[in-house]
Amino acid sequence: MKEDWFLLPFELKLQEAHAQTLCAANIYTDQELQAVTDGLRLLREQHVDTPCPESPAEDIHTWVESALVEQVGEPGRKIHTARSRNDQVATLLKMYVIASGDALVTDLAGLIRVCCEQAKAWSDIAFPLQTHCQFAAPGSVGFWSLRYAASFGRVRDSLTALCQQWRRFCPLGAGAVAGSSVPIDRKMQATLLGFESPSPNALDSTSTRDECLELLHQCAMTALHLQSLATDVIAFSQTPFAWTQYPPAFGTGSSMMPNKTNPDAMELLRGHAKLIAAAHPQAFALMQGLPSGYNRDLQCIKPIVHDTVVKLRDLLAMTTEFVGALDFDRERCEAACEHGFIDATLRMEQNVVNGTPLRDAHHEIAAAVAAGGFTGEAPTMVAYQTIGSASPAEVDRVADQLLSALAEGNP
Amino acid sequence: MKEDWFLLPFELKLQEAHAQTLCAANIYTDQELQAVTDGLRLLREQHVDTPCPESPAEDIHTWVESALVEQVGEPGRKIHTARSRNDQVATLLKMYVIASGDALVTDLAGLIRVCCEQAKAWSDIAFPLQTHCQFAAPGSVGFWSLRYAASFGRVRDSLTALCQQWRRFCPLGAGAVAGSSVPIDRKMQATLLGFESPSPNALDSTSTRDECLELLHQCAMTALHLQSLATDVIAFSQTPFAWTQYPPAFGTGSSMMPNKTNPDAMELLRGHAKLIAAAHPQAFALMQGLPSGYNRDLQCIKPIVHDTVVKLRDLLAMTTEFVGALDFDRERCEAACEHGFIDATLRMEQNVVNGTPLRDAHHEIAAAVAAGGFTGEAPTMVAYQTIGSASPAEVDRVADQLLSALAEGNP
Amino acid sequence: MKEDWFLLPFELKLQEAHAQTLCAANIYTDQELQAVTDGLRLLREQHVDTPCPESPAEDIHTWVESALVEQVGEPGRKIHTARSRNDQVATLLKMYVIASGDALVTDLAGLIRVCCEQAKAWSDIAFPLQTHCQFAAPGSVGFWSLRYAASFGRVRDSLTALCQQWRRFCPLGAGAVAGSSVPIDRKMQATLLGFESPSPNALDSTSTRDECLELLHQCAMTALHLQSLATDVIAFSQTPFAWTQYPPAFGTGSSMMPNKTNPDAMELLRGHAKLIAAAHPQAFALMQGLPSGYNRDLQCIKPIVHDTVVKLRDLLAMTTEFVGALDFDRERCEAACEHGFIDATLRMEQNVVNGTPLRDAHHEIAAAVAAGGFTGEAPTMVAYQTIGSASPAEVDRVADQLLSALAEGNP
Amino acid sequence: MKEDWFLLPFELKLQEAHAQTLCAANIYTDQELQAVTDGLRLLREQHVDTPCPESPAEDIHTWVESALVEQVGEPGRKIHTARSRNDQVATLLKMYVIASGDALVTDLAGLIRVCCEQAKAWSDIAFPLQTHCQFAAPGSVGFWSLRYAASFGRVRDSLTALCQQWRRFCPLGAGAVAGSSVPIDRKMQATLLGFESPSPNALDSTSTRDECLELLHQCAMTALHLQSLATDVIAFSQTPFAWTQYPPAFGTGSSMMPNKTNPDAMELLRGHAKLIAAAHPQAFALMQGLPSGYNRDLQCIKPIVHDTVVKLRDLLAMTTEFVGALDFDRERCEAACEHGFIDATLRMEQNVVNGTPLRDAHHEIAAAVAAGGFTGEAPTMVAYQTIGSASPAEVDRVADQLLSALAEGNP
Repeated sequence: MKEDWFLLPFELKLQEAHAQTLCAANIYTDQELQAVTDGLRLLREQHVDTPCPESPAEDIHTWVESALVEQVGEPGRKIHTARSRNDQVATLLKMYVIASGDALVTDLAGLIRVCCEQAKAWSDIAFPLQTHCQFAAPGSVGFWSLRYAASFGRVRDSLTALCQQWRRFCPLGAGAVAGSSVPIDRKMQATLLGFESPSPNALDSTSTRDECLELLHQCAMTALHLQSLATDVIAFSQTPFAWTQYPPAFGTGSSMMPNKTNPDAMELLRGHAKLIAAAHPQAFALMQGLPSGYNRDLQCIKPIVHDTVVKLRDLLAMTTEFVGALDFDRERCEAACEHGFIDATLRMEQNVVNGTPLRDAHHEIAAAVAAGGFTGEAPTMVAYQTIGSASPAEVDRVADQLLSALAEGNP
Repeated sequence: MKEDWFLLPFELKLQEAHAQTLCAANIYTDQELQAVTDGLRLLREQHVDTPCPESPAEDIHTWVESALVEQVGEPGRKIHTARSRNDQVATLLKMYVIASGDALVTDLAGLIRVCCEQAKAWSDIAFPLQTHCQFAAPGSVGFWSLRYAASFGRVRDSLTALCQQWRRFCPLGAGAVAGSSVPIDRKMQATLLGFESPSPNALDSTSTRDECLELLHQCAMTALHLQSLATDVIAFSQTPFAWTQYPPAFGTGSSMMPNKTNPDAMELLRGHAKLIAAAHPQAFALMQGLPSGYNRDLQCIKPIVHDTVVKLRDLLAMTTEFVGALDFDRERCEAACEHGFIDATLRMEQNVVNGTPLRDAHHEIAAAVAAGGFTGEAPTMVAYQTIGSASPAEVDRVADQLLSALAEGNP
Repeated sequence: MKEDWFLLPFELKLQEAHAQTLCAANIYTDQELQAVTDGLRLLREQHVDTPCPESPAEDIHTWVESALVEQVGEPGRKIHTARSRNDQVATLLKMYVIASGDALVTDLAGLIRVCCEQAKAWSDIAFPLQTHCQFAAPGSVGFWSLRYAASFGRVRDSLTALCQQWRRFCPLGAGAVAGSSVPIDRKMQATLLGFESPSPNALDSTSTRDECLELLHQCAMTALHLQSLATDVIAFSQTPFAWTQYPPAFGTGSSMMPNKTNPDAMELLRGHAKLIAAAHPQAFALMQGLPSGYNRDLQCIKPIVHDTVVKLRDLLAMTTEFVGALDFDRERCEAACEHGFIDATLRMEQNVVNGTPLRDAHHEIAAAVAAGGFTGEAPTMVAYQTIGSASPAEVDRVADQLLSALAEGNP
Repeated sequence: MKEDWFLLPFELKLQEAHAQTLCAANIYTDQELQAVTDGLRLLREQHVDTPCPESPAEDIHTWVESALVEQVGEPGRKIHTARSRNDQVATLLKMYVIASGDALVTDLAGLIRVCCEQAKAWSDIAFPLQTHCQFAAPGSVGFWSLRYAASFGRVRDSLTALCQQWRRFCPLGAGAVAGSSVPIDRKMQATLLGFESPSPNALDSTSTRDECLELLHQCAMTALHLQSLATDVIAFSQTPFAWTQYPPAFGTGSSMMPNKTNPDAMELLRGHAKLIAAAHPQAFALMQGLPSGYNRDLQCIKPIVHDTVVKLRDLLAMTTEFVGALDFDRERCEAACEHGFIDATLRMEQNVVNGTPLRDAHHEIAAAVAAGGFTGEAPTMVAYQTIGSASPAEVDRVADQLLSALAEGNP
């Protein structure tokens, strides 16, 4: 039961909504409803926020029902009317997924905000942007930070849309597989639990866990960008780069080598992010190969979803703090721009703007590089003109735009 | 280049939009634009819908540029201004992903429609619904068919929302990594290519392939439900069940056993669906472990996306045809309802409706089962009362509702 | 540190071997060695088999070193000579992997043994063997049981060979990345720890975790066959089959349906087996995308390996007990052989033995099936003549052979 | 049938062995055997090494049987006696897997050899070894090259052992699922096809594809080390490193940036290696969720195995050539050793050898690093004393040892 315990707040809310529906269907009298509601309130006060009690109960549903029977007697023995554990657990998981989606939307907002703020703080530091792990062109360090505001913003938009979609259909009342011959009002249940309407097919509701897979996929997408951020920071911290001022609180020393400080927090972020991403195919494998109808295998998805959400939220909190604490060594960053002929593209585009066809300009500049370099002052990152480019001005503009969108929207 | 060739229609459209933007930025004269546009039209007429030509060109982008130069001369040598292959391929892939998403939305509509139509045709055939692979309760065969209308409908809703999200930001103009110092109008490009606006960060646009991963994930979700449908049909066709009238066109005989007809099409559907689902973690692995900025590894995602979409569309077409051809053996289905005491839950609920508390009713019926069975007429699937239940009336109602929603919406 | 605690017995053994080597290299005097050895013995007595103590130590290595310093003083401060945590943890994990491999080899022997014993107990019960989920031919139930003896036997052989391969090279002494300039005797270390020789390349030893991936792969192979066994038993227990006498201790009832007993243990086995199989790609993802040399990400592989081994050993114990408790309903099994013309292939082969060319015999029998069946007594499973076939005699022979091979070999 | 065509040489060999066995069982006369053998020889001459012919045949087995009947008449119509496509395809796949394993063992030998030869060529070039992507200690470039000789050597050992294990049991004669009542000599078949003995359980032989999964796993392990090698080379080629003299034939320029040469071959190696690694979980998913007995899904594993082997062999050939063409910039490598205090550990160990306890030496050196550095000549990589260390002498010794082991063993 320990594995299920995280569902307790949702279970108690579900029971209360179900009791109200049973009352509307005349299974409960008003007094019975009151007794059950009081009993559930007591359980909430005593058990939410406390560790899982020792109990021989098979799962949280039987534990709550027993506890209720113990407290209120007869009405407790009616609470499972027109319902099965199958639709009950499907509903609880959906409620948990929605709550987790909402929480991640907020967590992501915090991370996006700090990326934007740092983008502004770093907008006038130039460093070499890279492609193929080669120095490519000069750009604002803030531009790098905004890459993550954009990436995480996209996940946040997807999650927001999904939370809305998940709220559409409530599984409760689907019963074991076929619905119920007790004429209870599924619309009322749905409304009480914050859904738009009851689900249209009981077999679909009890056989599938699509919302778990969708949530795990968004966790994987988040993790993908987290490990990318970690990879970048580790690369920027390599000995010959040393562009970052790596926050000491997030690194450790070596047991053998007195000369080392290692970017451990980012390596662990990279590692844990990959494990989070792997939770999705793990859950997916669980769902494959099963016939329609509830199968007990589905129980195994619960800890995957819960552990993944908890770990990801920890990583997001850590990363948000880390990005806030990170700084760059302006001198080393700017000195690095002297290497790799990284002004070549800007020089080529100068020629294009002055009328040389692109392919000619490309050959001219390539020839100059081969011959050892350029004469004339190097163009810098302020030269970029396009929307979303690596210039300081554009970084400031985009960061402000994203920050004000966040300020208007959800926290 | 063969691998890239599927992108040709998108490449030509992109080139035309880019040429118009270069004209607006005074890189092209009106005459040059006209020449380029004519050249592109010629390429479309000659090469779209034909096999990939033999060519030493490294990729489709260089092939198109060379062909253009050959046709129109000088203006062709300017076409790559303010652009890199990095933003070009990012844009093409996004265009392909959007087009594929749209196509899958339509394919899914076709499959949902046939599931609804068959649901109505089968609504009055009763068969045992199962949980834990055990007979559980009687229900309409049409109810089973609607489970897939619901499952595929959910994927279709997700895909529809994603197509809208993908149209939000156009990567074109992000350049190699940093944007461009040639002041071209990225908003114009975006509009001409059917996007809402240019992407806000060039590094994000060239480093990520989120839309590919999202599309592959929806392909995986579709595949998950396809293999579930196949699993159900194979189970219903087992020798002691023989509930289906398996369409002979979708089965084959045995090389050694003269007595067998095997449900091969469904086994292959199950197998291929799993391979499609596995494309997602495959692409995901590709994206992990890379620093920001374009890396050549990203090229490997193209065939994964293309092959997956093509195979999935084939499977959807086959499945749509299969469901339309499938039939059930009413006699065997209804005879099966005599087994496994599958009316037990409905009997228990009768007692509940008549005033017995649920837990007492559960014990009474369990005792009767243990003692060998029931007396009195068996309740049947018409007894279900709740929304989304397994009764024929509810099946007809939901099927009609879904069909009219499809009729109103996209085809 | 809680995560590392399972490594304590190996850590203490490693420390002792290392101390002896330091003594041989004159870093330790004999007295110092004695003090350290006594200290380690005390730690073993006090802490192996007890829960992990609360401690601010970063990991188990620093905890052990601190505890040693506290107990024996100065010599404790020399113990980390010519060594790094990098080679230390690589060695510990390899020791753990070898011990786990050995344990699984024994566990598998137990499962294979019960499969063979049941094969003999069930050798004279006939039931329909299936292909494509269709009744195909009659065969001994014991033949089915031997399929798992063969499958698990193959994994056991692989694991046995791997354990031998893992013992070949000892990583200890590889240091942080480059070895050491303190001339310690790596051969001595290797021998003391039960390896054949020191590893030939320190960079390889500290950068890779191949033995973890190999072990996880064998765990996945074991899990694959476990979920297959579960799938078979669930299929044999379907309502219209009911071939098994499912042991009640391994099933549960339904919360809503009074008529159901569900094969829960097998469904959970199927589910957990899939999760175990998914641990391999999870660990694999962790290892991809990293440059040579120790990276902190590697730390994340430890709990994956440990959790997987512990869970798999639990499942193997449960499955061994389950197979021992499983029984079949002879009457229902044999009655099932009346269906599906499953004697067709044997009849065809009779004709072949009597001189009809195979393709003619195939057509004759297929025609008879189409016409409604056969005349003349049906051949039965005793007719099979080939090695490894489904006849009772062959089942007994193979089972005895496997059992005596087990008896001769390791327990 | 195009998908199966790669199995043709194995199919013809199998048919010939089967014909001989049928003759021994008096199904064939000597004349019939001769006719069939001649027919098969003709098919080999005409069709092995030519493209797959257009044919309506369902698979290669039916095509070969038809072609045989066309050539030799009646005896062709007996060839499928005592056999099914199920055991036939299981045997062919096992033969293909063994042949592929052998080929990979040889390919790996070639790669290991070039790694050892380059190790000797580079043994006296010093560069900074890294841990946590930080400069850690000086070491021989040849030491880095030997890391891959060791890693690939381990895979080669595993593959060699597996090839031996796969040759143990021949599936042919397992029939569709149960063996055969025609008393053919499976031992003779096994011997003729190069196996030790017939498989002990027909159900196991036709239901499983363990050898495919094992081969794919070794392909994944090979791919893991290939992508690691690529990752290292890309890192060594980063602009501020530029340690490698990247062979121009393996790189390309940028479409937009005239200043870039990109390590494309290594990026594509990294990408393709990840796709190869992903083939294993893809095939694994296919095998999960299936009941015992042949299921048509198994057909889908064939192209996975074949494509993976072909691609991996291409990558191995390319990598072998690449490592042979790779060179290092001695000057830049040695200059890099001036950075990051990478002599710290060697200095610490000097103090230890001179009698300072390790922990004191560690603190002393750490203090010196904090204070800005050391006085006195820096110890260099020649100081390493242990087996498998990064010193030039040890690199030469290990490389020679591995090379002579290769020379003695298989080519």
